[in-house]
Amino acid sequence: MRGAVSVEGWPLDDRGAAYGDGLFETVLLRDGRPLLWEEHLSRLVRGCHALGIPMPAEHELAAPLAEAGIGLFVFKLMLTRGSGGRGYRPPAFPETRLRWQLAAFAPTETHWQQGVRVRHCRLRLGIQPALAGLKHLNRLENVLARAEWDDDKVAEGLLCDSDGRLVEATAMNLFWQREGRLETPRLERCGVAGTLREALRERLAITEVDVGPEVLDQAEAVWLGNSVQGVWPVVRLDDPDGLERQRWPLAAIHRGFQAEAHRLLGYPLPDPT
Amino acid sequence: MRGAVSVEGWPLDDRGAAYGDGLFETVLLRDGRPLLWEEHLSRLVRGCHALGIPMPAEHELAAPLAEAGIGLFVFKLMLTRGSGGRGYRPPAFPETRLRWQLAAFAPTETHWQQGVRVRHCRLRLGIQPALAGLKHLNRLENVLARAEWDDDKVAEGLLCDSDGRLVEATAMNLFWQREGRLETPRLERCGVAGTLREALRERLAITEVDVGPEVLDQAEAVWLGNSVQGVWPVVRLDDPDGLERQRWPLAAIHRGFQAEAHRLLGYPLPDPT
Repeated sequence: MRGAVSVEGWPLDDRGAAYGDGLFETVLLRDGRPLLWEEHLSRLVRGCHALGIPMPAEHELAAPLAEAGIGLFVFKLMLTRGSGGRGYRPPAFPETRLRWQLAAFAPTETHWQQGVRVRHCRLRLGIQPALAGLKHLNRLENVLARAEWDDDKVAEGLLCDSDGRLVEATAMNLFWQREGRLETPRLERCGVAGTLREALRERLAITEVDVGPEVLDQAEAVWLGNSVQGVWPVVRLDDPDGLERQRWPLAAIHRGFQAEAHRLLGYPLPDPT
Repeated sequence: MRGAVSVEGWPLDDRGAAYGDGLFETVLLRDGRPLLWEEHLSRLVRGCHALGIPMPAEHELAAPLAEAGIGLFVFKLMLTRGSGGRGYRPPAFPETRLRWQLAAFAPTETHWQQGVRVRHCRLRLGIQPALAGLKHLNRLENVLARAEWDDDKVAEGLLCDSDGRLVEATAMNLFWQREGRLETPRLERCGVAGTLREALRERLAITEVDVGPEVLDQAEAVWLGNSVQGVWPVVRLDDPDGLERQRWPLAAIHRGFQAEAHRLLGYPLPDPT
């Protein structure tokens, strides 16, 4: 079994398709079991509350899991405000619409082992506290940022907000160690609060900070992570023109944080460097 | 004939449904003829260029017009980057996907005649020059702003950006007269550059300005307008709690600007006040 999808696509008048009026989650499954499931549900609850969309029962959300086979899968769950309303005005009693996709998955193990090269994106994220932290369906900023480079040697792009503060990468959260302390950007103005980030914050002392990208000049180690790919050490950072700006040699320091994340996802601990 | 739609909905993996990775236009049709069609096409061209989506040929976009009957219709045209790519990363050669809806329409004539009551929204629009002016499918800000009130006596809500500058209403552009001059907010940081606004700027001296909402205290007249509803004089402005903040008596001053817009849309000129 390589994958499956919910039977139907989206009706023409679905508000998710029309306005991005909905949410999604991308969940790693191992042998049919969802990883960080509590964190995914909790972000969905926050999103439904913020958007005023009725949250489906957990058994409805989890029903497709029965179709996943042995091995690793990615379960993409999409949830919209359904149809109706008048233009942007939401219907008084929305009927949440659910759709899902299930696909066999293999993480990029070389990125775990060797680390990744990333670059700064030119695009700045708009500041929108009403949507910050949520995994909503308005993702054009991420699409435009990801379209800034085409070089497969560059694994991710770092994003600042319109005031110049570091936020995240296009599809991963950002972490670094400075003077021995773990830090990650605050996500109260924009960005997606990843479920792996949430789970790591519960287990490790990670301080949320408001800082510009120059903080990385002082970083002893930098990582990117999400709940599907695990954690990638950053070994090189380029500017938006692709010119090298900074390097971090792979070191033992990288492996502790990575190991903590990989335990949560059932991924192997990388070989010590 | 009350309406028609393109046969299919959206595939599950459509990037418009997944990320709002696309554009739309809402076009007024009179007896099958699209109004401000050049302005709609020109905004689509700008949007396709900004997003890197291939622009369909005009005859493809216009094909559904043949299905419209006599009278007024609204033609909603949606265009996405299609399927494919890896996550946010767009496919190298996207195949644009088109869908449309056609619905019989009647404008709100009492708003033309009597003017409207509007309110300030609490939500602030995020600043995103890469998307400003475009009618893209990431419209959660508009949905959240429109959900701020439920009182049918309030016709629209005014939006400022995160720096406090006036931008637009949730689904209309904003215009006012101050010291005898017509003004409208600049839309280079956020907001939708309406086609009626574009057409009026070609015909009248309308200055684009960067100003906060206090400018309305000095306004002799205020209007909202779009290419479907025409132009509504604003006669009352409330704060976000619904408390009255300002009134403008309906006067002859309102009718000249309105008449100019209504000529472009083939709408009747309101009775002189």
